[in-house]
Amino acid sequence: MHRSELNAYYQRVRRLSENICRPLALEDCVPQPIADISPPKWHLGHTSWFYEAVFLDERIPGYTFFNPHYKFVLNSYYDSFGARIERPLRGTLSRPTVKEIFTYRAYIDEQMTQLIEDVEEAGWADFAHLLVLALNHEQQHQELLVTDLKYILACNPEKPAYRQDLAIGKSAKPIELSDRFVDFAGGLQQIGWQGTGFAYDNEGPPHQAYTAPYLLHNRLVSNGEYLEFIRDGAYRDFRHWLEDGWKAINDEGWQAPLYWIENEGEYCEFTLGGLRPLDLQAPVTHISYYEAEAFAQWAGKRLPTEIEWEMAAQQVGADPADGCFFDDDRLHPGPPGAAQGGLHQLMGDVWEWTGSAYLPYPGYRRIAGPLGEYNGKFMINQMVLRGGSCATSRDHIRPTYRNFFKTDKRWQFTGIRLAEDLS
Amino acid sequence: MHRSELNAYYQRVRRLSENICRPLALEDCVPQPIADISPPKWHLGHTSWFYEAVFLDERIPGYTFFNPHYKFVLNSYYDSFGARIERPLRGTLSRPTVKEIFTYRAYIDEQMTQLIEDVEEAGWADFAHLLVLALNHEQQHQELLVTDLKYILACNPEKPAYRQDLAIGKSAKPIELSDRFVDFAGGLQQIGWQGTGFAYDNEGPPHQAYTAPYLLHNRLVSNGEYLEFIRDGAYRDFRHWLEDGWKAINDEGWQAPLYWIENEGEYCEFTLGGLRPLDLQAPVTHISYYEAEAFAQWAGKRLPTEIEWEMAAQQVGADPADGCFFDDDRLHPGPPGAAQGGLHQLMGDVWEWTGSAYLPYPGYRRIAGPLGEYNGKFMINQMVLRGGSCATSRDHIRPTYRNFFKTDKRWQFTGIRLAEDLS
Amino acid sequence: MHRSELNAYYQRVRRLSENICRPLALEDCVPQPIADISPPKWHLGHTSWFYEAVFLDERIPGYTFFNPHYKFVLNSYYDSFGARIERPLRGTLSRPTVKEIFTYRAYIDEQMTQLIEDVEEAGWADFAHLLVLALNHEQQHQELLVTDLKYILACNPEKPAYRQDLAIGKSAKPIELSDRFVDFAGGLQQIGWQGTGFAYDNEGPPHQAYTAPYLLHNRLVSNGEYLEFIRDGAYRDFRHWLEDGWKAINDEGWQAPLYWIENEGEYCEFTLGGLRPLDLQAPVTHISYYEAEAFAQWAGKRLPTEIEWEMAAQQVGADPADGCFFDDDRLHPGPPGAAQGGLHQLMGDVWEWTGSAYLPYPGYRRIAGPLGEYNGKFMINQMVLRGGSCATSRDHIRPTYRNFFKTDKRWQFTGIRLAEDLS
Amino acid sequence: MHRSELNAYYQRVRRLSENICRPLALEDCVPQPIADISPPKWHLGHTSWFYEAVFLDERIPGYTFFNPHYKFVLNSYYDSFGARIERPLRGTLSRPTVKEIFTYRAYIDEQMTQLIEDVEEAGWADFAHLLVLALNHEQQHQELLVTDLKYILACNPEKPAYRQDLAIGKSAKPIELSDRFVDFAGGLQQIGWQGTGFAYDNEGPPHQAYTAPYLLHNRLVSNGEYLEFIRDGAYRDFRHWLEDGWKAINDEGWQAPLYWIENEGEYCEFTLGGLRPLDLQAPVTHISYYEAEAFAQWAGKRLPTEIEWEMAAQQVGADPADGCFFDDDRLHPGPPGAAQGGLHQLMGDVWEWTGSAYLPYPGYRRIAGPLGEYNGKFMINQMVLRGGSCATSRDHIRPTYRNFFKTDKRWQFTGIRLAEDLS
Repeated sequence: MHRSELNAYYQRVRRLSENICRPLALEDCVPQPIADISPPKWHLGHTSWFYEAVFLDERIPGYTFFNPHYKFVLNSYYDSFGARIERPLRGTLSRPTVKEIFTYRAYIDEQMTQLIEDVEEAGWADFAHLLVLALNHEQQHQELLVTDLKYILACNPEKPAYRQDLAIGKSAKPIELSDRFVDFAGGLQQIGWQGTGFAYDNEGPPHQAYTAPYLLHNRLVSNGEYLEFIRDGAYRDFRHWLEDGWKAINDEGWQAPLYWIENEGEYCEFTLGGLRPLDLQAPVTHISYYEAEAFAQWAGKRLPTEIEWEMAAQQVGADPADGCFFDDDRLHPGPPGAAQGGLHQLMGDVWEWTGSAYLPYPGYRRIAGPLGEYNGKFMINQMVLRGGSCATSRDHIRPTYRNFFKTDKRWQFTGIRLAEDLS
Repeated sequence: MHRSELNAYYQRVRRLSENICRPLALEDCVPQPIADISPPKWHLGHTSWFYEAVFLDERIPGYTFFNPHYKFVLNSYYDSFGARIERPLRGTLSRPTVKEIFTYRAYIDEQMTQLIEDVEEAGWADFAHLLVLALNHEQQHQELLVTDLKYILACNPEKPAYRQDLAIGKSAKPIELSDRFVDFAGGLQQIGWQGTGFAYDNEGPPHQAYTAPYLLHNRLVSNGEYLEFIRDGAYRDFRHWLEDGWKAINDEGWQAPLYWIENEGEYCEFTLGGLRPLDLQAPVTHISYYEAEAFAQWAGKRLPTEIEWEMAAQQVGADPADGCFFDDDRLHPGPPGAAQGGLHQLMGDVWEWTGSAYLPYPGYRRIAGPLGEYNGKFMINQMVLRGGSCATSRDHIRPTYRNFFKTDKRWQFTGIRLAEDLS
Repeated sequence: MHRSELNAYYQRVRRLSENICRPLALEDCVPQPIADISPPKWHLGHTSWFYEAVFLDERIPGYTFFNPHYKFVLNSYYDSFGARIERPLRGTLSRPTVKEIFTYRAYIDEQMTQLIEDVEEAGWADFAHLLVLALNHEQQHQELLVTDLKYILACNPEKPAYRQDLAIGKSAKPIELSDRFVDFAGGLQQIGWQGTGFAYDNEGPPHQAYTAPYLLHNRLVSNGEYLEFIRDGAYRDFRHWLEDGWKAINDEGWQAPLYWIENEGEYCEFTLGGLRPLDLQAPVTHISYYEAEAFAQWAGKRLPTEIEWEMAAQQVGADPADGCFFDDDRLHPGPPGAAQGGLHQLMGDVWEWTGSAYLPYPGYRRIAGPLGEYNGKFMINQMVLRGGSCATSRDHIRPTYRNFFKTDKRWQFTGIRLAEDLS
Repeated sequence: MHRSELNAYYQRVRRLSENICRPLALEDCVPQPIADISPPKWHLGHTSWFYEAVFLDERIPGYTFFNPHYKFVLNSYYDSFGARIERPLRGTLSRPTVKEIFTYRAYIDEQMTQLIEDVEEAGWADFAHLLVLALNHEQQHQELLVTDLKYILACNPEKPAYRQDLAIGKSAKPIELSDRFVDFAGGLQQIGWQGTGFAYDNEGPPHQAYTAPYLLHNRLVSNGEYLEFIRDGAYRDFRHWLEDGWKAINDEGWQAPLYWIENEGEYCEFTLGGLRPLDLQAPVTHISYYEAEAFAQWAGKRLPTEIEWEMAAQQVGADPADGCFFDDDRLHPGPPGAAQGGLHQLMGDVWEWTGSAYLPYPGYRRIAGPLGEYNGKFMINQMVLRGGSCATSRDHIRPTYRNFFKTDKRWQFTGIRLAEDLS
């Protein structure tokens, strides 16, 4: 990537983070209602600190940190970068203020812009690769910004909309679906990233993987179908659930997906555009792995493995261009549009829970140094999700992309695609 | 009290709450770092809701609440007024925004001003009494505003000052103290409120109380003396402590008063004017009952009972005019000035922990209705404090005033005056 | 006390502790279902360790502890005697076995018997006083043994009786009660222990105390009356409760006294003689301070202060001989018998919650040394109870005796006597 | 299996459970120091209730449960069989006593013996299969009995031995090991159970699985090697650890495997034969998945997948006959003996943590009815272990056997075998 191109990419990503926060009240930028959620201003700060720790401090001799306290309050989980505030305390910090963080961002941008110009040619490729990673890091936080601010807004009994002008519900009438399962041959194939562009270390190395023939549902599970599951006693019948899931729904009192609100048997749903009547044709979202797995059990199906998902994506030529992403300014999953290779919405709309644990691919080794903490240390007790969501940037996603969350998390745009053995 | 007088009082109290928040960043108005602390914007809202629930809704036929959600989010602990947000969740609310709360305050002020005009003569006395109580309620929240915002600011590693222009440290050279214990005869005397002005129900009924002769220290325990206690091993020697206190200091890792920061044996203290070197002559403050009691044990003395305190206050003619209060714009206890009846700083500077449990006076009955929840239901597991602090409004305090906190609380301006038996 | 007399007293107390455990299965001696409860075998061991730590190790030159681990596992809360197992872990210990503890007890008895003989005349008085204290200590644990084993047995869904042959329910027909309040003059009188026999340090020093004239109910509140309170919505109406109490009943889900079991509106009660239909005339027991206070509120009365209780006891000449105690082998409160000075059951049956906080009497100083930890360090956040219970030994109680428990505790034989102002 | 044969198997298994408990004091049979551990008497009861619920109640018309309370207190996790005591409360139950449980066992044995005789020929095969499963269930609890009683004994500061006569340390001098990695071809092979004898449902269905060529260490990681890891700073260096693991070791304060005790740099180990100096040549055991994974990272290797493990087991003809199991009466892992196919101790001694998550095999479906709760509902958030341990019965294990535990569990006999990619 050329300097000017990279610089443009840098500027574009940086502006987007800020633009995401503009519709918010300053007060929305501060709370941390649960430990999973970070205050929006923290995201804006952390994504700036990242460049300071990874680039400026490493590459500018005698560099002085903009503010020594920021190292402590804006470090997320990098033990390599020293002591840091405990995660659940992020919401106790009233300072730096949003304005101070914007000042900090401007300072970092100035320094980084200069650095992009100054890096010597010999080190350019490495630098560029690392910077692209850092920009992808910021893109991940953009998705978290969207999901975290949704959670924060939803805590308010008033349920304020993030924006009134989102494209939710403006989608054309959904295509008449032939409701069917598409078969895939499986077999021994290569999966994992092997291109020349950027991918995370956890997407590789590319390797042979095997799976028996299988079927994938041509579309995502809809709100209407999930509602049927609820009305069939979903949350009251232990037989559908994994033990940990049954405990979770009872401990937490879950009776529906995260943002559904029931009133005398009718449901509405909190979206970033405010409360809306439940769209029965749209994909169900904001569900835990437990709920995805239980739905599949109830339906007599199962979740696909990540190998199955990726082989299918290869076969149908899955392309981010075909899905609904952050760029489409809807910020909510919608009813299916046109299919690719028989599959609707394989990319975008909702992250699809797979039945695969997030573990290293064969041959994977953690990178040495701080960035070794980026992906590798989380490879336990999480499940893989694939395909990106309506809150993911289109240029951030790939068919090999492995997202991962703990099994009880519901605040991401998560959903379900069913699979079946081909017997 | 005349209408115009009461109206002026109303306006004065209302403006003060707002003025307290003006030096804050908007972001400082949102967090709730621990359950004891409320976000400043919550205080501003709650003190407005109080008039709506107690006056407007009761006295204006067909009154509609300004915003139905505010009843839920701004009710503190009044079961009489229905369901409410759980206390530890106040900091999860980003809305109403500070601006919305100011709009709400303006609306309430308009309504209340009208109501003060409209109340019929026949009901005026009752109305006026109730409104004075409500204004005292807001004054209590003003003190909490000060102590809560101090806590919030202190959570920030930067330790930002609330205001740079406070009168801390500008006090004249302290009077040369003859360090002595003043004797009081005790005996059977009447205590409790019996005047014609306003007092809380918990200050009465007036009744005979008895105490043996006793001595009170002529001044408050200083930072210098408390430091001596620390250096003598205070926090490491179980023998000084009540069992619950020893548990608290070990569970919480306390090694000094709340806002002291130690660096290589030297201490500084976070004040509302920012970090300052510890003023050894100023009264120690921000200590729990456990620490007050342990200090007294160590010093071979004891805390006074509230009866002893109040009888002494009667005898010396304790007068709010003589102490340092919120109105003095210092917001931090300072070295002693002139004595009254031999006692320095009996009123103001710091709340003095007494050795008396907060229990009803003989003959006390809870008021019927919502305001019965104001004081009576808290009469358990708390200790009484007397005298007011540098964060109390001068016109809010009286020698009969009974403040109360749980034994492990440290975020108020609390301090120590020693007592002794006259043997 | 003569040596032979003290020795006889020693042997009597020691045998009683063992006899209390004899009806138990070995398995009953092990569990600690909640932190408040200690395993019966721990009580048997701890009361033996106490002599070892306080007498044998202090007075026998070169004394070697019977088993060095016992110092760790059998110390209760004496920081003076070094590190010890955390209280909630007592039930994790399967060893020493009951048999090993009996062996230990026999060893301690042998040593102590010898010591009683060997102490030089010059030190006899001090020794005897200390030993009487130690025997009173063991007597306190005998009461705890009874209440703890009751709790342990009640945890079993089978609700096994401790003994089938208890005198519960065998009491004669209760005296026809004239239900009345007896008036007392109050005034300035001396309270606190001042005799020549044994009393705990917290019962003194004797001092003048004042109270206004008052009335005491001539009997205890009965199960029937408490049931009326329940049926009037006691546990659902916040207005009766202290704030902490309302929280406790909701957090814990309390709907009746501790051992009441409701079945379709009918109640039975777990007693040490097994499950029994609720005896409506017997005193209500196993209630927290919150429940006692709420009942009094509901009844339009209040709890007596400990001063009122003790002055009344003086006036009526309260005598342990008149009450129902452990020695009566009933182990459950029964209906009232004959009155003393107009008051039924002032001594015995149930500990009566007073409205007084457990705080030091004027002039009280903690004893130096380990026994300073016996009473003084608990003087906070507890309420005083008076009169002893059906699980207290008759020779252990006095009218000046101050028992104390935290406000949420229910596993002791606690009850209610109402008081009223004489207006 | 013939009736007489099955009956003999039944009797053998039943006697063994009882014999495991015989060396215990009655008191050892009661505590539940942590929720993972069950009291030994509970295991004895639960394994009896299982026959009552699954056989007697299903097959004997009008069958009455031996004791209706036992259904409540002895059900482990079968929602199909109704309400039950919460797991962490098992240790609060003093009843049924050990003796009562033995009586219950005798009753169940009588009924089951009769039932084995009475079952009609037509239903024999199904019955026999189910009974073999039930006996395997009891065998699993036998292993838990051993590991749970070890934990209970270790809670006692005296560290009492379970038995003095165990064969620990009596093993012959270990074979001189050529320390090497054995290579395996991998490829596409069938794994999973497909024989005619008994296997759990989670071991099937048999299916094709693929893995690249790989290496397995010819032996287990030894205490000596693990000690080297510790001395290299293992527990203080975040770089070795998964994020969840780093949190666990810090939260729990782990500094060595579960039963190691350090004293001035020297380690001893609590075994069922009591405290012993650490045997540096024996396999390390009682480690969590986190520790196994961190050790492998530190050593520059990795854990094998369960596919790799099972393919290797097939290739070397792994046979329970070759390992050290419960039957060998050592109850502690020992140094390696002879190798099978180049691999020492593949079966027995310690369960080997694999790098595979416990998830359903392709084509797996939960069984309908209560036994569907046996394995399937636990297939989340656990890792697979293979090979059995010194506490597993030899006739209970197979190379296809999939054991599973959460990643922080350490009380089983768990250990490490390293793997490596063949590059």
